[in-house]
Amino acid sequence: FIQQSLIDVKPADITSLLYEFNAVESKYVMDLLPIEVQSEVIRDLDPDTRKRNIKIYQLPEVVQLLNQLASDDAADILHELPVKDREIVLGGLEQELRIQVTELLRYEENVAGGLMAKELIKARINWTVVECVEEIRKQAENVSKFYQVYVVDATDMLLGKVALQDLIISDAKKIVADIYEKDIVSVETYMEDWEVAEVMKKYDLESVPVVNVHGQLVGRITIDDVVDVITEQADEERQMMAGITENVEEDDSVWRNTRARLPWLLIGIAGGLMNAKFMGLFENELARVTAIAFFTPLIQATGGNVGIQSSSLIVQSLANPDFVDDGLWKRLVKVFFVAILNGLFLSVLVFVANVFLFKEYELSTVVSLALFSVVVFASFIGTITPLVLNRYGFNPALAAGPFITTINDLLGLTLYFFTIHLML
Amino acid sequence: FIQQSLIDVKPADITSLLYEFNAVESKYVMDLLPIEVQSEVIRDLDPDTRKRNIKIYQLPEVVQLLNQLASDDAADILHELPVKDREIVLGGLEQELRIQVTELLRYEENVAGGLMAKELIKARINWTVVECVEEIRKQAENVSKFYQVYVVDATDMLLGKVALQDLIISDAKKIVADIYEKDIVSVETYMEDWEVAEVMKKYDLESVPVVNVHGQLVGRITIDDVVDVITEQADEERQMMAGITENVEEDDSVWRNTRARLPWLLIGIAGGLMNAKFMGLFENELARVTAIAFFTPLIQATGGNVGIQSSSLIVQSLANPDFVDDGLWKRLVKVFFVAILNGLFLSVLVFVANVFLFKEYELSTVVSLALFSVVVFASFIGTITPLVLNRYGFNPALAAGPFITTINDLLGLTLYFFTIHLML
Ligand SMILES: [Mg+2]
Ligand SMILES: [Mg+2]
Ligand SMILES: [Mg+2]
Ligand SMILES: [Mg+2]
Ligand SMILES: [Mg+2]
Ligand SMILES: [Mg+2]
Ligand SMILES: [Mg+2]
Ligand SMILES: [Mg+2]
Ligand SMILES: [Mg+2]
Ligand SMILES: [Mg+2]
Ligand SMILES: [Mg+2]
Ligand SMILES: [Mg+2]
Ligand SMILES: [Mg+2]
Repeated sequence: FIQQSLIDVKPADITSLLYEFNAVESKYVMDLLPIEVQSEVIRDLDPDTRKRNIKIYQLPEVVQLLNQLASDDAADILHELPVKDREIVLGGLEQELRIQVTELLRYEENVAGGLMAKELIKARINWTVVECVEEIRKQAENVSKFYQVYVVDATDMLLGKVALQDLIISDAKKIVADIYEKDIVSVETYMEDWEVAEVMKKYDLESVPVVNVHGQLVGRITIDDVVDVITEQADEERQMMAGITENVEEDDSVWRNTRARLPWLLIGIAGGLMNAKFMGLFENELARVTAIAFFTPLIQATGGNVGIQSSSLIVQSLANPDFVDDGLWKRLVKVFFVAILNGLFLSVLVFVANVFLFKEYELSTVVSLALFSVVVFASFIGTITPLVLNRYGFNPALAAGPFITTINDLLGLTLYFFTIHLML
Repeated sequence: FIQQSLIDVKPADITSLLYEFNAVESKYVMDLLPIEVQSEVIRDLDPDTRKRNIKIYQLPEVVQLLNQLASDDAADILHELPVKDREIVLGGLEQELRIQVTELLRYEENVAGGLMAKELIKARINWTVVECVEEIRKQAENVSKFYQVYVVDATDMLLGKVALQDLIISDAKKIVADIYEKDIVSVETYMEDWEVAEVMKKYDLESVPVVNVHGQLVGRITIDDVVDVITEQADEERQMMAGITENVEEDDSVWRNTRARLPWLLIGIAGGLMNAKFMGLFENELARVTAIAFFTPLIQATGGNVGIQSSSLIVQSLANPDFVDDGLWKRLVKVFFVAILNGLFLSVLVFVANVFLFKEYELSTVVSLALFSVVVFASFIGTITPLVLNRYGFNPALAAGPFITTINDLLGLTLYFFTIHLML
């Protein structure tokens, strides 16, 4: 019955279904499917789920699955196997795929070499259109979704490309040299994945050839894999902004979820203890005017909000690098004006509200002055922190999370009690 | 000289360059370029910059530019023009483009109809391969980057597709009905843009045909435009998490930046004033044990961090809908266990630290108990809020920002003073 109902379903839909099953149930469903479908389903699974499911497969079964896949996907799955199984599975692959995958395993996951597949169609510059078509016919079963023929010379140096649509409408007797486009965007094997994504976005590409340091064509990256990179980047940024330290998902184990949350909670706690110690220094003032304590949440919350707003705008600019970096100075001047405007507005408002709510002119003045300076300083720190992090090779999104809130809580308290000390 | 140096540069690189210039300078550079390049540059500009630059163009110049563009891009730019200019420019377009653009203008920006272009290649199911190639030859100058021929019947109903690569290797005398793939993923004109993105991600598509309610082929969406949708979504989510209410960028005006930040700052202020009023109720306790005040930052910061962590994990699950929704109950039970673990660990740690730092057993006990309950309650609220927002059609990322911090600041204070009230 299950087999019946799965027959018209697309592999990607079966993949979604498998998230509902455990490894044994998944295997049961998978065994009912043709091997080509099985391999597509396995390929599209989330790595965590795949690792869990593949554990109960025999190695020859894994070999069978990988033999159906493109070289990039086979290499990725091989990467996930225990090292001792890797050699065995690799040895079982069909010869051509084995050679391709072996080469791909050399590259890090997060560079162009780790994203590319070896399957592509290339044509020599001196071939005729007919020879090209012959080559396509030969490769057609290996290479899916190709839209360009890459043009190379006798030493495999990338020279350009011919779009399939141009090939179709070209006179069969023409040679590649007459019809190819010299203007081609390529990436190098060692380019980082997010740079590949930038290039493909910028030039609106659906695939991009990969060349080695000598300029020789060694692979091809397709947009679907780069879209996955973009999604992972967004996930990573969100996690940084939320103070989660491991790549964790809701469906991961309780223990892993706990562990991923603890580090930033601990840093927050450390900050909180410093706040407590700091306030302890002003015990006398607090005892004299208890109402001082009422406004620390207001000051700190505003500092936190302003800091996160500022840093996230910088993170956004850095993520969309098309916008010109006007230089630190111009950035800061602008942030300063925005902060002055927001700060003025908020502190006047709070002054009026406080006079009305608490009828304390002096304390209200202190709170509003402190609030104003917190808005200005928190904007400054929120702007500068992601820039510094980025400069030293950290993900700037780190600055748009608990990092900045913890700093700004302390900053807010300091500015508040400094104002109190001066004025009360 | 500028013209010389721009001659070998790709349009996308000139686009990047224009962000450094004002409208007049941009126009000066643009006028040196061939019209095809100008139109590509204009197309790729950020809408804000484009609107600013295009203001100084004469309407006939705009017509000239749009005549070079694909229907989707021409429609987008037309959307940005003042309404009174729109009719004039539309009237000036070449007939075919005018008809296409007029149809596209009917659709909202954020649905499939607003993303699609009218340019595509379609073939009747009863055509021969030769007729297909003839059609491609005819359309080749209008349609760039196409990789599928869409197969339709006499009434334009979408039946399937033929990949270009299959067309190339097919016998010229075959008919389309023999070689086409029936299995085709399409989207409807009214489908929302993020749903289109989900579909294209799931099935790894580089383009997708769009059909109307009758199933007739009306357009085509390419992945480059969907990648832009994905990037915008990430920007929007980041802004929500950072408490920025307008789609604003660092390079927008001081006034716009100020306005975008104010609403959430005001809500934070309102929360802060409520905090102050609430603490005022415990003035006597505070006067008696001043040290109570020392620990509000610790409690509130931890509540904020835990809340953001929890809500961001839900936002992530909702953004990657492949993971199965296990149901509210299972979700909450899991969050509860994670919270218990984190809460236990943190409150024991804080107890030890407090005893050591402040030598106050009783107050330390109160702080740790309050901390534990804050971790549990903030996890719960952080989990439930994005789910509720999502249920009622709001962006759940709203819950991973100042919204949740403001709520949790109040929650933390309440739990803390409640514990104090019970125990001190
Ligand atoms: Mg996972
Ligand atoms: Mg890889
Ligand atoms: Mg683009
Ligand atoms: Mg893939
Ligand atoms: Mg791939
Ligand atoms: Mg993931
Ligand atoms: Mg802008
Ligand atoms: Mg549009
Ligand atoms: Mg995909
Ligand atoms: Mg576009
Ligand atoms: Mg387009
Ligand atoms: Mg944008
Ligand atoms: Mg806070």
